[in-house]
Amino acid sequence: MDVLGVLNLGEVGVYFSKMAMFPVFDLAYYIVSILYLKYEPGSVEVSRKSPVASWLCAMLYCFGSYILADIILGVCPIDYFHNNSHILLATAVWYLIFYCPLNLFYKCVAFLPIKLVLVALKEVVRARKIAAGVHHAHHAYHHGYIIMIITGYVKGSGVALMSNFEQLLRGVWKPETNEILNMSFPTKASLYGAILFTLQEAHLLPVSKSTLICVFTLFMATSKVFMTARHSHGSPFALVESWVCHLLFGSPLASADDHHAPAATPVSPVKTKEELSEGTRKRKAKKAE
Amino acid sequence: MDVLGVLNLGEVGVYFSKMAMFPVFDLAYYIVSILYLKYEPGSVEVSRKSPVASWLCAMLYCFGSYILADIILGVCPIDYFHNNSHILLATAVWYLIFYCPLNLFYKCVAFLPIKLVLVALKEVVRARKIAAGVHHAHHAYHHGYIIMIITGYVKGSGVALMSNFEQLLRGVWKPETNEILNMSFPTKASLYGAILFTLQEAHLLPVSKSTLICVFTLFMATSKVFMTARHSHGSPFALVESWVCHLLFGSPLASADDHHAPAATPVSPVKTKEELSEGTRKRKAKKAE
Amino acid sequence: MDVLGVLNLGEVGVYFSKMAMFPVFDLAYYIVSILYLKYEPGSVEVSRKSPVASWLCAMLYCFGSYILADIILGVCPIDYFHNNSHILLATAVWYLIFYCPLNLFYKCVAFLPIKLVLVALKEVVRARKIAAGVHHAHHAYHHGYIIMIITGYVKGSGVALMSNFEQLLRGVWKPETNEILNMSFPTKASLYGAILFTLQEAHLLPVSKSTLICVFTLFMATSKVFMTARHSHGSPFALVESWVCHLLFGSPLASADDHHAPAATPVSPVKTKEELSEGTRKRKAKKAE
Repeated sequence: MDVLGVLNLGEVGVYFSKMAMFPVFDLAYYIVSILYLKYEPGSVEVSRKSPVASWLCAMLYCFGSYILADIILGVCPIDYFHNNSHILLATAVWYLIFYCPLNLFYKCVAFLPIKLVLVALKEVVRARKIAAGVHHAHHAYHHGYIIMIITGYVKGSGVALMSNFEQLLRGVWKPETNEILNMSFPTKASLYGAILFTLQEAHLLPVSKSTLICVFTLFMATSKVFMTARHSHGSPFALVESWVCHLLFGSPLASADDHHAPAATPVSPVKTKEELSEGTRKRKAKKAE
Repeated sequence: MDVLGVLNLGEVGVYFSKMAMFPVFDLAYYIVSILYLKYEPGSVEVSRKSPVASWLCAMLYCFGSYILADIILGVCPIDYFHNNSHILLATAVWYLIFYCPLNLFYKCVAFLPIKLVLVALKEVVRARKIAAGVHHAHHAYHHGYIIMIITGYVKGSGVALMSNFEQLLRGVWKPETNEILNMSFPTKASLYGAILFTLQEAHLLPVSKSTLICVFTLFMATSKVFMTARHSHGSPFALVESWVCHLLFGSPLASADDHHAPAATPVSPVKTKEELSEGTRKRKAKKAE
Repeated sequence: MDVLGVLNLGEVGVYFSKMAMFPVFDLAYYIVSILYLKYEPGSVEVSRKSPVASWLCAMLYCFGSYILADIILGVCPIDYFHNNSHILLATAVWYLIFYCPLNLFYKCVAFLPIKLVLVALKEVVRARKIAAGVHHAHHAYHHGYIIMIITGYVKGSGVALMSNFEQLLRGVWKPETNEILNMSFPTKASLYGAILFTLQEAHLLPVSKSTLICVFTLFMATSKVFMTARHSHGSPFALVESWVCHLLFGSPLASADDHHAPAATPVSPVKTKEELSEGTRKRKAKKAE
């Protein structure tokens, strides 16, 4: 907190945590999300054969976190769809990524330097969503700490948590794995973030919410940008997690967790969704054209 | 609108759109729906082995549209089940179709002339359900056009949209297809109908709601009666859709869409649910006895 | 009712039906439920590989009935999770059963005499849950008898009704069967119990609710204790059911229903969840360690 104090993080944080997400950050979120949808094997065929199914999948990728959080809290699951401008923007992005002539838009946003910027912007939205989810649940259940963590987790992870059912919509069914059995880095980070924001909301963490948003955003953006740039699917938590899980749950100690995980689950395609090396994905997506 | 004007459609429409659906039209709806359930391979075995599962499936076939719409709007999904008389009527129809001695009731209602009348009456209910769904969503979300379309769509399509899960209840699992990937004619028509009713509700369509209900009902009843009578599974939209999808989404142009579709998806059994030629279905159902 | 009157059941019943369930009875419920989770093949591996998935499954086993009933009634599905003490207790039980050094806690509670007591206590909770579910639904829908039966049924059966999706969380998918197709004894008893409590709530059964709770609890506890002690998976309802189903639904008459059922469904592993002979289960669980 010393260095952060020097940087006058308090004021920056407050300004940052009040910044509007729509349209710039949300646009980046939609672009990166639907880009990941296009990387999924078979999604281009679905977009040709059944545009309605493809559009629904794209909406799940963009608004899955709202839908899931609404389900979890017992509200109308498509409540968010009354934001016509958001839906229109996401629909435009979906159309441009899947049907733009010469695949121009896709080539543009998948160009690494541009993509890195978009990925960083997307993480800004994720951090804000987690904070908003925890705050919303706190409003409804003052001492429902588990509900607050679950809501924040779901808001941060979004479509990943319902990937089995999103795949089913595209005619793909992979029951042997799911995002909770094999958590990817963003899902794990969302869980830890939700716990942190819940502790903050319960006044057990001596920081202001705006500071926490700021620090968490910086951490997420940096991590994801590095991982995207280096085509890595390791996790900064691997070492600590490995030890904690070994001590608490008797899990086998994986000192080389990075190459252990893919070896243990060679057929798990869900895990790789946000983590598959970018090169392979692009080749796959190109082939699918 | 000229010919319609001559027929004094306005007054007929108003009268028609106020007509009570219970019990005659609803009865036809239940009969045709549970008839389609009996056509499903394996459903007769399930009715012998587990009457509870069979009854639940029958209820999904009859009230699936209400259940789905309630889920979509975040209301109690079994809210409709407090209409004891409707449930009793549907239960009686289910019992008669599956367990009537000598299969008499089934033979009666599956007799083509009677069935054609019932199919026409069912479409009257479908049109009314779409209009009611759009109106209900409009009441909750004044400018939520997407929500209005989705609710109307879901009210019109009913169990078809959750066919994967309805099949799962009977121990059948076909993840490679679903109603959104391979839309049948009633599902497509429900989608277009929901869009029309939403436009009408948003005052973008210069017709009264009763006229629209009347015209849409006429179109649906005629189409379904013709398709049932001719054992056809073509769609009146095929040509227009093919061109629009080709222009907008780069889908391959299928001038002979009717025999292209089954060729492209030879293993899709969901698609065929409401469209399989009647002859084959009856033979299957008879064999299953 | 004669013998019951001699025992002064009225007063005992009122006292019994007002007894607090937390913490003793709830503790027994959590222990037996999570014990059944540990019996499931593969659950120990999941607990090592993904503690989050294992914890979620344990929560579904303990609170599945609340989650399902909340879904059915359109309320926040994780509403019950604001009871932090209940969640903490269940989490402690989960931790002790899966990760206790030397497997001590598991060996303790799986020791037959102790287990029989716990099983009996669990049935006390089940009966109370059914009564509470029916009462809650009656409060919301005064004449919604079907809704009352469904809510009571769901409250009594709990996780069994969503076993397909609970298994999916652990990476297991067995679509060919489910708890409704092959009802186990507790599920069936919950259905009959829900019908009885609904009749009582509708004043069609000339007994007080406390008496009914008392009698139903006695029946359930006795049956389950006997079945657990004798490693039996027969059902006291088998003979009556067989005749009623034969008369009403034309099901084949199975005088020897006990060995007919497993023969007809040799691959159904869900059915065996609560009914598999204890010996086999323990051996399986031991092997899985």
